[in-house]
Amino acid sequence: MRIVEIRDAVVPMGAPMRNAVIDFSRMTVSAVAVITDVVRGGRPVVGFGFNANGRYAQSALIRERLAPRVLEAPEEHASTDGTTLDARAIRSLMMRNEKPGGHGERAVAVAALDIAVWDAAAKIADMPLWATIADAAGTGAPERSVPVYAAGGYYDPDKGTEGLVAEMRRYLDQGYTQVKMKIGGATLDEDRARIEAVLALLGGDGARLAVDANGRFDAETALRYADALVPYRLAWYEEPGDPLDFSLNAAVAAAYPGAIATGENLLSLQDARNLLRFGGMRPDVDFVQFDPALAYGVGETIDIVAMMAAEGWSPRRFLPHGGNLLALAAAGGLALGGCESYPGVFQPFGGFADDTPVEDGRVSLGDAPGAGFEHKAALAALLETLL
Amino acid sequence: MRIVEIRDAVVPMGAPMRNAVIDFSRMTVSAVAVITDVVRGGRPVVGFGFNANGRYAQSALIRERLAPRVLEAPEEHASTDGTTLDARAIRSLMMRNEKPGGHGERAVAVAALDIAVWDAAAKIADMPLWATIADAAGTGAPERSVPVYAAGGYYDPDKGTEGLVAEMRRYLDQGYTQVKMKIGGATLDEDRARIEAVLALLGGDGARLAVDANGRFDAETALRYADALVPYRLAWYEEPGDPLDFSLNAAVAAAYPGAIATGENLLSLQDARNLLRFGGMRPDVDFVQFDPALAYGVGETIDIVAMMAAEGWSPRRFLPHGGNLLALAAAGGLALGGCESYPGVFQPFGGFADDTPVEDGRVSLGDAPGAGFEHKAALAALLETLL
Repeated sequence: MRIVEIRDAVVPMGAPMRNAVIDFSRMTVSAVAVITDVVRGGRPVVGFGFNANGRYAQSALIRERLAPRVLEAPEEHASTDGTTLDARAIRSLMMRNEKPGGHGERAVAVAALDIAVWDAAAKIADMPLWATIADAAGTGAPERSVPVYAAGGYYDPDKGTEGLVAEMRRYLDQGYTQVKMKIGGATLDEDRARIEAVLALLGGDGARLAVDANGRFDAETALRYADALVPYRLAWYEEPGDPLDFSLNAAVAAAYPGAIATGENLLSLQDARNLLRFGGMRPDVDFVQFDPALAYGVGETIDIVAMMAAEGWSPRRFLPHGGNLLALAAAGGLALGGCESYPGVFQPFGGFADDTPVEDGRVSLGDAPGAGFEHKAALAALLETLL
Repeated sequence: MRIVEIRDAVVPMGAPMRNAVIDFSRMTVSAVAVITDVVRGGRPVVGFGFNANGRYAQSALIRERLAPRVLEAPEEHASTDGTTLDARAIRSLMMRNEKPGGHGERAVAVAALDIAVWDAAAKIADMPLWATIADAAGTGAPERSVPVYAAGGYYDPDKGTEGLVAEMRRYLDQGYTQVKMKIGGATLDEDRARIEAVLALLGGDGARLAVDANGRFDAETALRYADALVPYRLAWYEEPGDPLDFSLNAAVAAAYPGAIATGENLLSLQDARNLLRFGGMRPDVDFVQFDPALAYGVGETIDIVAMMAAEGWSPRRFLPHGGNLLALAAAGGLALGGCESYPGVFQPFGGFADDTPVEDGRVSLGDAPGAGFEHKAALAALLETLL
């Protein structure tokens, strides 16, 4: 049993949005197919993967470094019992001759390919990916229904506050109960007005609204916003400062009684651990948001949850970034606290299966083998073009 | 005044060596040329750059993300007074629409291009790069002579301890007074024998020998090696553990009275600052080794030295990784404590100008405009192929 071919494609993710730091109009994503020598129903079993938005496609890295290392060592692809692929061993092949540290584009490229390997391994084992993940982690019962929140509220000069509220109302109409909006791309006064307009829609319930500064603020601004946010009693205040400025994060945590959430731009277990050790994060208050589809994939995410336990953190405090079926499978398999969602954007990678709509702020996990990408028609159609 | 074209090439750096973690036989490097619209002696002024060894070439990232952003905004290339390029402004262009955190391949790609921009800017200003760097940093007088040490002692099954000693003897014959060898790719007993053989060559003077574990050890092994190394009173013990495991580093620093050196795999100002804040590093004992040609280039290195001062660190504790003319220019311009060198390997990028040999463990800085790459014939010949 082995992987016989690895294919990838660069897919434009052009989205007419900007947060406080970047615009997404030229964003790209890598889609990956891992073709195995296992045949089911007359076709080879194929695993699919992709990276999450925000870090661009990684075709060169996949083709020049990762895929050759995997394909050169086919004898290391199968699990010890020979029943499926050994995704951990294949990940080790990808990382041959890679130095430690410097977790950036490599983490993104490995994630896309690793996800495809886990998808293939789960399909060969005829199991849903969430169940495979739960088995591999051994941390307890998976969740068949995962809380999701709608992340949007990007800046748009034409939209205005009225458009922002209309957008959030659409999310509620779609079945979401909790929403997130961007801050930091306008003045504090403007942001306050935007927040209050959305809160009015939510019946004044701050627990249903999170805000996201996308790492834009210096310490002074982060603390000024923290002060201004306190009275709203929001669900969380996301990425106040540079994701690696653990001292800034600790200062905000010390000053702000509400929850902080951060971690989507920490792309490895080592970086994630440093956040918990040095970022002043409170295990009973704050949230972490590492992204399996940016940070080395499924195995790394399982290891991150184990690391969190060792550092005294419940997996319920982990709300992965990404808003896709892979993040949902990880959230279910590892019994995380929930999962981000970007309704209608970052398509076709964003969102969940067509047959599992958001209901009362939750999404169900399907029974299909693998990650279930085939149950999202637009995504399946795109992935099929790799074959 | 503007950059009119950016070219790059992928150069194999095949070197038949391995350290404790990777082998270098398939390593590649990006060489970059920045062609300006300034004409001198009938030819356009061209700046050259490249990344240091260990992280592979970054052609796709340069061509798809960095170069287009720079070339799209020519009106932002010139300095305010119009006399040369504004390397800081051009670096900001490269980073448009890049998210914070995740400093990996991007830092390497930006470094290669940023170095070429600084080389061009110095040539246009008709100044050596080390003087340009000293002016930009404003931190004091540059050094015209920089201590260098010979880094080698890679594992080689055919070489044995005899070959290791012969290699180190060659470095001494070439004018080096301090050498570094790898550890951690063999058993502790074997490594001890290797160290003692080299120490015998050095008259038993541990201050002339550093050892490098390349981030390989877990905490227990790192501490076991630390204990074993104490009696040798070595110059330093390099990268005992994962470069981002600041707790491990702090544990070694607490247990080991000698110097620790680390940082070559921390690819940004933010990561460097975290090492100083959380890694248990002692400003009066330890060394940092950030690499300008892996970590975003010249401007970032100037910022790192300023950050070090803010954290209570002298620039003398900074011995950059890289072993090339760019690292030498940074070491001279910022009056760092010295500079690594890899005699005879990583050619033609490694090493210094043909007309400034190593003498008594030091290398002089030349007066040529720019980084002086043109004064290293083999490197100049390679870079010229970009034109």
